[in-house]
Amino acid sequence: MIYITSSSNPTIKEIKTLYRKKERWTKKSFLAEGIKIVEEYVDKKYPISYIVVSENLHNIRGGEALLDKIQNHKYIIQVPDKLYKEISDMESPQGVLAVVKFELDYIQNLHNKENPFILLLDKVQDPGNMGTIIRTADAFGVDGIIVTDGCVDIYNPKVVRATMGSIFRVPIYHYSIGAEIIEELKSKNIKIYSTSLKGNRFIQNTDFNKPSLLIIGNESKGVSKHLEALADDLIKIPMVGEAESLNAAVASSIIMYEVARQRNH
Amino acid sequence: MIYITSSSNPTIKEIKTLYRKKERWTKKSFLAEGIKIVEEYVDKKYPISYIVVSENLHNIRGGEALLDKIQNHKYIIQVPDKLYKEISDMESPQGVLAVVKFELDYIQNLHNKENPFILLLDKVQDPGNMGTIIRTADAFGVDGIIVTDGCVDIYNPKVVRATMGSIFRVPIYHYSIGAEIIEELKSKNIKIYSTSLKGNRFIQNTDFNKPSLLIIGNESKGVSKHLEALADDLIKIPMVGEAESLNAAVASSIIMYEVARQRNH
Repeated sequence: MIYITSSSNPTIKEIKTLYRKKERWTKKSFLAEGIKIVEEYVDKKYPISYIVVSENLHNIRGGEALLDKIQNHKYIIQVPDKLYKEISDMESPQGVLAVVKFELDYIQNLHNKENPFILLLDKVQDPGNMGTIIRTADAFGVDGIIVTDGCVDIYNPKVVRATMGSIFRVPIYHYSIGAEIIEELKSKNIKIYSTSLKGNRFIQNTDFNKPSLLIIGNESKGVSKHLEALADDLIKIPMVGEAESLNAAVASSIIMYEVARQRNH
Repeated sequence: MIYITSSSNPTIKEIKTLYRKKERWTKKSFLAEGIKIVEEYVDKKYPISYIVVSENLHNIRGGEALLDKIQNHKYIIQVPDKLYKEISDMESPQGVLAVVKFELDYIQNLHNKENPFILLLDKVQDPGNMGTIIRTADAFGVDGIIVTDGCVDIYNPKVVRATMGSIFRVPIYHYSIGAEIIEELKSKNIKIYSTSLKGNRFIQNTDFNKPSLLIIGNESKGVSKHLEALADDLIKIPMVGEAESLNAAVASSIIMYEVARQRNH
């Protein structure tokens, strides 16, 4: 265990830089904070560079057990509670975070999937929604998520927390220009679906058994017009009453369930 | 328009008390904060007592339009930006909140529904989840939500924000003891379902066409054992891969969709 007490220590400074997207991508590293998520990352042997614990961690429920579990980890850094709070992103810090390495997946790998169901995210901006979409995609065995420009960074600490460990289990591809990759996949006989309030088909009446891609749009503006125009079918979720819409992550999750249901997972 | 500049003004003090559950229930009032939600409450003529706007509201996107819309409202209170921040609950305050009256619905009314689909919430504690569940219930025409002891208060400002206007559109009943009301509804031939990882039936293979009640449990602990024991059927969502679970609001939403799908809404 390494003890650090000064906020001007280079390691502490380096951790703080990981709150900025550019630094995360330069260092191919992100922060995973909280007892449950660090425990999962340790259990599953995800590529943790080091773990920072606050002096107070053992007083938090589950903290003692986590400390036992990680005691043989190569790099554990202990810091005073006050310093921990300085590097924490949580409203009520639990006193543990991990610095984790990530590697990018090549979009070419997407072409190897047989009968894929793919999500394409277009300007999804709320970290909680982004994380929940990734978590649900994992639960329903989605074959890949394409993240295009204008989305919140999937390595944003709030996204990471909401995904739990799923960020390592779902193939996630980054591709700048949504229209370009959609055209390419379309030419390979993947059917393109977009949710739309003016959709002409309910999701339960849509046949998702063939290779498919679903475009998921921005929380308040929906799918960009120029991407919607590329869709083979505009689909919608059956709703009653006056509620204008569902939460974006909920709507995406319901469609993922419907696809899984039809494909008999 | 009334101008208030002092944080010791009695109205300002009264607003602040509404962050406490006890005060909300004594005054039968809650806070709805944000441009979109206040706009919806005004449009739908929900029972707003008064609206507080910050001097800065017109500089926020959508603020000017909202000001136009509410200018003839009986009670508008304008406060300096600094004072607004004091009474705000949002990380980035938009500069508008409404104090809104609520009335309780009597659980007896639930018995008048024909072939109802009801939710019973057991220790749902995350405000975002609670709000999302209410919003989805509205979208799928759920006949009623029973909130039992141990749940986050539905009039908590964070819950209110996540529901959008749905809190006024879904019948919500408060009943202290979950087991008691479940027994009563069971005796009236309502089938009781509980989600459970050890569920013996997938939701898509469960017949929701008869009068049904679904118990939704705590985010990390699931449904309480003594309530699970009252269920006629333990059901589960089909999942693949290693993801241990879905987000609680997502899981509930998927089941609400499945029920609506079967009932052909």
